[in-house]
Amino acid sequence: MARTVGVLGGMGPRATADFFQKLIDLTPARRDQDHLRVIIDNNPGIPDRSRHILEGGEDPTPALVATARNLERAGADFLVIPCNTAHHFLDAVRRGVRIPVLDITEVVAQRAADLERVGLLATRATVVAGLYQRALARKGCEVLTPSEARQELVNRAIFAVKAGDLGDRVRSWVREAGQELLERGAQALVLGCTEIPLVVDPADWQVPVLDSTALLAEAAVREALGPVATEPGVIAAFGE
Amino acid sequence: MARTVGVLGGMGPRATADFFQKLIDLTPARRDQDHLRVIIDNNPGIPDRSRHILEGGEDPTPALVATARNLERAGADFLVIPCNTAHHFLDAVRRGVRIPVLDITEVVAQRAADLERVGLLATRATVVAGLYQRALARKGCEVLTPSEARQELVNRAIFAVKAGDLGDRVRSWVREAGQELLERGAQALVLGCTEIPLVVDPADWQVPVLDSTALLAEAAVREALGPVATEPGVIAAFGE
Repeated sequence: MARTVGVLGGMGPRATADFFQKLIDLTPARRDQDHLRVIIDNNPGIPDRSRHILEGGEDPTPALVATARNLERAGADFLVIPCNTAHHFLDAVRRGVRIPVLDITEVVAQRAADLERVGLLATRATVVAGLYQRALARKGCEVLTPSEARQELVNRAIFAVKAGDLGDRVRSWVREAGQELLERGAQALVLGCTEIPLVVDPADWQVPVLDSTALLAEAAVREALGPVATEPGVIAAFGE
Repeated sequence: MARTVGVLGGMGPRATADFFQKLIDLTPARRDQDHLRVIIDNNPGIPDRSRHILEGGEDPTPALVATARNLERAGADFLVIPCNTAHHFLDAVRRGVRIPVLDITEVVAQRAADLERVGLLATRATVVAGLYQRALARKGCEVLTPSEARQELVNRAIFAVKAGDLGDRVRSWVREAGQELLERGAQALVLGCTEIPLVVDPADWQVPVLDSTALLAEAAVREALGPVATEPGVIAAFGE
């Protein structure tokens, strides 16, 4: 029996929908009944993560924890959060529930383990909070972040996607920021914000593109279908 | 405060994802916080609706009701079911929860009220159960259903989509069935199965195409954002 995926979503809704679609596409299935049970709480009312990190706006932690608990109560066996910036609050979410919560930065870092230097396209808050710098340092991989002017373009693009604008102008902002990172020696680009894949064509670049949404979906499918537990007590219970 | 949408999903998952995307696209929003809270229980393990209706396979009613109750407990203020065939069991679902459950066939029928004759592309089970024939008869609109050979093509297409095949061959089956209905005098085509819009380009036809997924999403946005209640006590509470 596969485990039920809980999706702490709504940050933003388009990124959550993209995650859900990628999860479906990555699930081996020939009929409805082969697919995973996925419970999504798309809760866009969670206060702005970036604003809290950068300007001390309302703390999203209580809403994040409440939404995580709602998913646990509804039957999720583990949680994913298809929003990179929200991972600044991951420890609090993990303390708030009894089920595992995957770490999107760790999932991406595992894929970047063989690289020396990657470029990061993410919210300014994710960059300032150092989420990817820490996760990738553990793999011996350096993170290049955009210059101030290019980071501003990336941020503008992310908030444009949240407003429903996926147009060419928005795409060009992301392309320009990525190009700068490649010129400075990035061997790959990390799409470290789940809005970014919605305005990026990986074919635009000659280097590997690590899409955090797709990698989290892949990890969720593995977690849902994989061996039920490594904890001895739980395995024993299954053997009964 | 907008109402929370509950989505009884997984029938199939791709149709649920399409519904979610259309709901997002139809919501007036400039930032995450303007979007609707949407709780989705994508439960693809619900037994096959068509098989039960046509061959007496396992009854999906208990799983449908349990999933509806799970959404109600998780905070949904009303429910939608982005699966037409599942509406054969709508009365049981409605009896199982205290919150309203929208009726996809009623939503489509409202849009077809001015028409005399529409063609129906749906599962054989939806056709046999007469779901649209009843809903549209109440509006004085006649339903044309495909010949046996074309119905077989439509069914094959629906189960191909569930298996992840959205290719040209599958699209041509649906086109052929739709063409037959137009030749027999249909003034519009009802996409009365939520898998069908995934393999239909409305531009293929010269007549209006009533996409049940999109119309249900539109109705859900109205229900979520509309006047909170017609019940006098509740209105009074808002006036305080």
